[in-house]
Amino acid sequence: MSGSALAWKTADLMAKLKAREPRVHCVTNAVAQNYTANALLAVGAVPSMTIAPDEIAAFVGGADALLVNLGTLDADRRTAIGLALDALGAKPWVLDPVFVDRSPERAAYARALAARHPAVIRGNEAEIAALSVGEGLDHYARRHGVVMVASGVVDHVIAGERQFGTPNGHQLMASVTAMGCAGSAVLAAFLTVAADPFEAACAAAMALGVAGEVAAESAYGPGTFASAYLDALHVMDAGVLATRARTEA
Amino acid sequence: MSGSALAWKTADLMAKLKAREPRVHCVTNAVAQNYTANALLAVGAVPSMTIAPDEIAAFVGGADALLVNLGTLDADRRTAIGLALDALGAKPWVLDPVFVDRSPERAAYARALAARHPAVIRGNEAEIAALSVGEGLDHYARRHGVVMVASGVVDHVIAGERQFGTPNGHQLMASVTAMGCAGSAVLAAFLTVAADPFEAACAAAMALGVAGEVAAESAYGPGTFASAYLDALHVMDAGVLATRARTEA
Amino acid sequence: MSGSALAWKTADLMAKLKAREPRVHCVTNAVAQNYTANALLAVGAVPSMTIAPDEIAAFVGGADALLVNLGTLDADRRTAIGLALDALGAKPWVLDPVFVDRSPERAAYARALAARHPAVIRGNEAEIAALSVGEGLDHYARRHGVVMVASGVVDHVIAGERQFGTPNGHQLMASVTAMGCAGSAVLAAFLTVAADPFEAACAAAMALGVAGEVAAESAYGPGTFASAYLDALHVMDAGVLATRARTEA
Repeated sequence: MSGSALAWKTADLMAKLKAREPRVHCVTNAVAQNYTANALLAVGAVPSMTIAPDEIAAFVGGADALLVNLGTLDADRRTAIGLALDALGAKPWVLDPVFVDRSPERAAYARALAARHPAVIRGNEAEIAALSVGEGLDHYARRHGVVMVASGVVDHVIAGERQFGTPNGHQLMASVTAMGCAGSAVLAAFLTVAADPFEAACAAAMALGVAGEVAAESAYGPGTFASAYLDALHVMDAGVLATRARTEA
Repeated sequence: MSGSALAWKTADLMAKLKAREPRVHCVTNAVAQNYTANALLAVGAVPSMTIAPDEIAAFVGGADALLVNLGTLDADRRTAIGLALDALGAKPWVLDPVFVDRSPERAAYARALAARHPAVIRGNEAEIAALSVGEGLDHYARRHGVVMVASGVVDHVIAGERQFGTPNGHQLMASVTAMGCAGSAVLAAFLTVAADPFEAACAAAMALGVAGEVAAESAYGPGTFASAYLDALHVMDAGVLATRARTEA
Repeated sequence: MSGSALAWKTADLMAKLKAREPRVHCVTNAVAQNYTANALLAVGAVPSMTIAPDEIAAFVGGADALLVNLGTLDADRRTAIGLALDALGAKPWVLDPVFVDRSPERAAYARALAARHPAVIRGNEAEIAALSVGEGLDHYARRHGVVMVASGVVDHVIAGERQFGTPNGHQLMASVTAMGCAGSAVLAAFLTVAADPFEAACAAAMALGVAGEVAAESAYGPGTFASAYLDALHVMDAGVLATRARTEA
């Protein structure tokens, strides 16, 4: 798909998000919870965040998609992740393998989760490399039947032979905590309105990157950028997307 | 009370908050803790947030009011809530029954808490309806001797036959997480300076709604709105309140 | 050191932070985690925050410095603190004794931690006074071989006979939650590039205070101030520091 065509598709999916208000349940880290909830609200989705064992099945049962983020992983979160996946049924979920490059225990756990059929695995380049170590990203994606997203200066989306890249984005995104975590949650929301996980991942990558560019234009540093980024997601439209969309191989 | 009279009363109570700096202990959800603390600081109150079982009695003992918010409810928070209410004595507290419309377990627990004499129960319309299901809000309020606040496009305050509504507010308030949670904490602070819980609830509803209107005028979306809202609470004065105050029913 | 000389030293250390990107692991309170991570990123450091017992040693082992903040202290955090200090080796750490003036249990625990050789203990005046009750700050500092920082209208840095004070800062810093917690984390980052803990503490105090002054000039209240403060830390340079640096005593 051309950049322009994807821009229009992305705008269409974002309009659907605002119309349908999908619920996205997030098992995510303590640092990211607030910003993640705000990013979901900004695109029209409805977040929930509980990890309590006696309630999480009810929340996941009423949700349209799930995010599993491994930041600040602990025993309570592991229990919650198991219960959430058990309750999820056929609904889609995103795995964000935060810091698997920093903790062998976490990497092993992430590999076990990858066998439970996430629609998308999305992390930064170091995390995605640590997860798929010893085989190519495309091979790993094909073997697990999963779409892989490696975010960075260029965001790469890989689903076996289907591949997409976008350089949209801004360097201040690396200076705000939870930016990637929030992006994975927004991607989970896109899964509820897109034709398939590859389309969702490409559209989310473009929306997130363009929001970063828009935000940078009114920001004086990472503090005002973090707020402006939520604004940009909220007011994103086809005109902005079509003007800025860029793609790479 | 007329809108104008309530505006002046609200300004008077906000001046008292800044002079007295009441301590408000919050047992609240992980998503809302930071924004709630900032909202309390913005109006001049002093927040504390610990839920550790060996410390919470000391913190509640030194506090002037308590907020109990049921978001991300878990075993630790349930224990903390019990200990906090035991240590509270005659000081006032607010119950915010987050998501009781989404989890039957949480609704049952909230109903049990309602018997422990909160001064005010404050939630959004769906939550308040779920809590008082099967009887009218006014009947529920009278039966429990509690002031009920249902926030929405119009914020309704109900204390048996005494009723108040204000349409002050802005739609961006629904696009920022923890906005309601923070509002309930601010209401807890108002309880420490108002003549009674009904006055506190009406004044807090007006202050929170007017802050939303003021914030929206300088915001470009939910990110800058969240910051501007704290600013608006911080600099709120009688002139702003008297100019904007609107009441219903 | 004169204010001007310290300003240039501070700018030099901040350039080193951006070049070296030191990792700072933080065991900190739930309210402060997000803002603390953003403050570290703003100065070029890389935060991590897990408190999970099976992972914290790996994270601390890969970190360059540690922050131990006692806010929302609970059993999990106590366990994490012990494991983190065991794994730290000779790397420097900062103790932030949040609310030791409000909880006797926490004060006793903080005193025990002070025996485990933090490089710096940094808190507000009430907390530092509660910790060193019964002896002078300078005596306490000398007895523990630690640098003490008491933040307030004037930030005081005390290392036995070496003493420093800076009135740089702004009153809005007291109206934003986690401002002090984030400052202690930034100080932990400075420890990785400074000649010694006293230099790190003086430079951090100056950088944090000047950032507050810069932020206040573009802020309308505590909400926009919190964002502007991160911006100011991010773009801080020798010119800004040299123009604003003030010292006392």
